[in-house]
Amino acid sequence: MAVYTDVSDDELDAFISYYDLGKALSFKGIAEGVENTNFLVQTEAGSHILTLYEKRVAREDLPYFLSLMEHLAANGIACPLPVRDREGNNLRELAGRPAAIITFLEGLWVRRPSAEHCAALGTVLARLHLAGQSFEMTRANALSVDAWRPLFEQSGNGADTVLDGLNDEILKELDILEQEWPHDLEQGVIHADLFPDNVFYLGKNVSGVIDFYFACNDALAYDIAICLNAWCFEPDNAFNITKARALLNAYVAHRPLDKNEFDALPMLARGAALRFLLTRLYDWHNTAADALVKPKDPMEYIRKLRFHRSVNSAREYGLGEA
Amino acid sequence: MAVYTDVSDDELDAFISYYDLGKALSFKGIAEGVENTNFLVQTEAGSHILTLYEKRVAREDLPYFLSLMEHLAANGIACPLPVRDREGNNLRELAGRPAAIITFLEGLWVRRPSAEHCAALGTVLARLHLAGQSFEMTRANALSVDAWRPLFEQSGNGADTVLDGLNDEILKELDILEQEWPHDLEQGVIHADLFPDNVFYLGKNVSGVIDFYFACNDALAYDIAICLNAWCFEPDNAFNITKARALLNAYVAHRPLDKNEFDALPMLARGAALRFLLTRLYDWHNTAADALVKPKDPMEYIRKLRFHRSVNSAREYGLGEA
Repeated sequence: MAVYTDVSDDELDAFISYYDLGKALSFKGIAEGVENTNFLVQTEAGSHILTLYEKRVAREDLPYFLSLMEHLAANGIACPLPVRDREGNNLRELAGRPAAIITFLEGLWVRRPSAEHCAALGTVLARLHLAGQSFEMTRANALSVDAWRPLFEQSGNGADTVLDGLNDEILKELDILEQEWPHDLEQGVIHADLFPDNVFYLGKNVSGVIDFYFACNDALAYDIAICLNAWCFEPDNAFNITKARALLNAYVAHRPLDKNEFDALPMLARGAALRFLLTRLYDWHNTAADALVKPKDPMEYIRKLRFHRSVNSAREYGLGEA
Repeated sequence: MAVYTDVSDDELDAFISYYDLGKALSFKGIAEGVENTNFLVQTEAGSHILTLYEKRVAREDLPYFLSLMEHLAANGIACPLPVRDREGNNLRELAGRPAAIITFLEGLWVRRPSAEHCAALGTVLARLHLAGQSFEMTRANALSVDAWRPLFEQSGNGADTVLDGLNDEILKELDILEQEWPHDLEQGVIHADLFPDNVFYLGKNVSGVIDFYFACNDALAYDIAICLNAWCFEPDNAFNITKARALLNAYVAHRPLDKNEFDALPMLARGAALRFLLTRLYDWHNTAADALVKPKDPMEYIRKLRFHRSVNSAREYGLGEA
C-alpha cells in the first residue's frame, strides 16, 4: 500500500486539462498496489484511476500493457480501459513519471475466495486467454524459468536465514525445473499475476480484472498454475481441492486443456510457486526497513512448492482426464 | 498515509447492511490521514468515507466530534456528515475499532495556497466559529499550554539532536508562554488542526472542511493563530504577509476581533508554533523505523516560532487596528 509520488492539485489540473474529462472534483491516493502509485480521481465525467508508473515497470513495456487492456476491453473482458487525451495519447507524463488515466471498475476483491468465486475466476481466465489470441503485440515473460536462477543469485545466500536448508532446496528445484520445464504448450497472452486483489467481484460474479503490468506471452496453462497457487490454498497453506476443481472445471468448459497441458500442470504449478517464492525472497532481502510496503512472507510459497512436488497428476488438482 | 486496519469484503458487507446505503460497489483504502484508517466506499447510494478510529483518538471523544460535524453541517458549514444506521447510531464497531460512515465531500486540497485561497479560508474559519457558538457539548483542548511541558518531557532530551541548543530554547519558551498565555479571550469551538490538507477547494472556493478529530473548546483566536502558521509561510519558511492579510481581513469581515484578541495574536501564534513543534518532536523521537507514516520535520516549526517571537503586534501580520 503506497503512494510513492505525490501530485499537486496544480499538476493534476494541468494534466486533466489534456483530456475530455471536465474538471477534477476530488483526488485521493489509493493505499493499494505495490508497483505503481494510484489515485482515484473524480471528474465531471465520473470516476477514474490515475496511475503513475514507478521504476519497477519498464517504460518500453507500457504500450504493450495499455494496448492489451484496450484489446481485452474491446473483446468483452471487463478490465480498465486507458482513456485517450484529445491528441489520442493513452500515455502522458506527470510528476516525472509515465502516467495514464484508466476507467474505474466497480467491484470488491475477495479476501477469502469461495469455490464459487474460484469457478467465476476460471471462467474469466479462459475468456481472457481466448480474447488474447487476437492480440498482435508480444512481450516475453521476464520472470519465466530462465530468469529464476539469476533472480535467486541476486538474493545472495539469504535463503537459509529464512529457513535452514532452503538454499539447497531451491538450487535442486532450479535444476529440475530448468531441465523439465515444458516448452511445447499452447502460447498466448497471460495475466501472470492474477491474485485475488486483482479480481473484482459484485456478489459471486466477476466485475473486472485489473493490473496487467506483468502480462506477457507464455504458456496459457502457466496462468492457470499461478491461479492454483494464489486462490486454492487456505490460510494454513492446506490445498483446497474443492476450490481447485471449481476453478479448473470452469476453465476447461471454455477452453479445454490438451494432453500436453494436462500432463504439465503439476510442473507448471511447481514453477509458479518457485517464481513467487523467489520474488518474495528477493523483496525480503532487498526492502529497506523504512519502505512504505512491507515485504510478503516467503514461507507461504515454500509450503506451496512442497505441496506441488508431491503431486503426480493434474487429477490430484481435481481435473478430469484431458 | 496509511491504512492501519484492513477490512475484508465480508466484514464490509455485514457492516454496510446496517445502513440504508444498498450494496457496496467498490472499496479502496485512502493513503491520507495520519491518525485514522479511511476507506472510500461506493455504494448504491453514492460515495462515502468509512473511518476506523485508531488508538490515537480517544473513544470517549468520538460523540463530541461526530455531533459537532452534525451541528456544523446543519448550520451551513460544508463538512462531512456522519451517516446514521437504521437504529439511529452514528458510530458502530468494525474490525475491533470504533467506525463511522461519513458523507463524501468533493474538492481538492491545495498544496500551494494562494492569497485567494487564504481569504476563502478566513471566511470559512469565521463562519465555523460562528456556527459553533450554538453547539452545546464541550471538550477541553488536550494540547493547550498546560499540556506542552509534559509533552516536551516525554520527548526526553532529544531536542538537541535535532538542533544544538533547542532544548534550552524550548524550556525558555515554555516559561514565557506558561506565564503570558492569555486566558480571557472569547471561547468557542475551534477546529485546532486546520492545515491545508483539511480544507477542500473547487477552484478558489472552499467546498468543505474535514478532520474534526482535534476539535475542542478554546480561544477562537487561537484557531486563527494555527492557520497563520499552517497557511502563511512559504516553503523556505518566509512569512507571506499578503496571505496573512487576506486570511485575517476575510475573517474579521465575518467575526471582528476585540482588542484582547488583537493584542494576543502574536503570543497565540508563538504558542501554536510551539504546539506543532512539540508534537513533531515527539513523533520524531517516537516513530518506529518501520512505521507506515514518516514523521514531519520539526525544523519547520522552530523557524516559525522564531519568526513569531520577533512580532510585536498583530499589525505585523497584516491586520488593521482592532
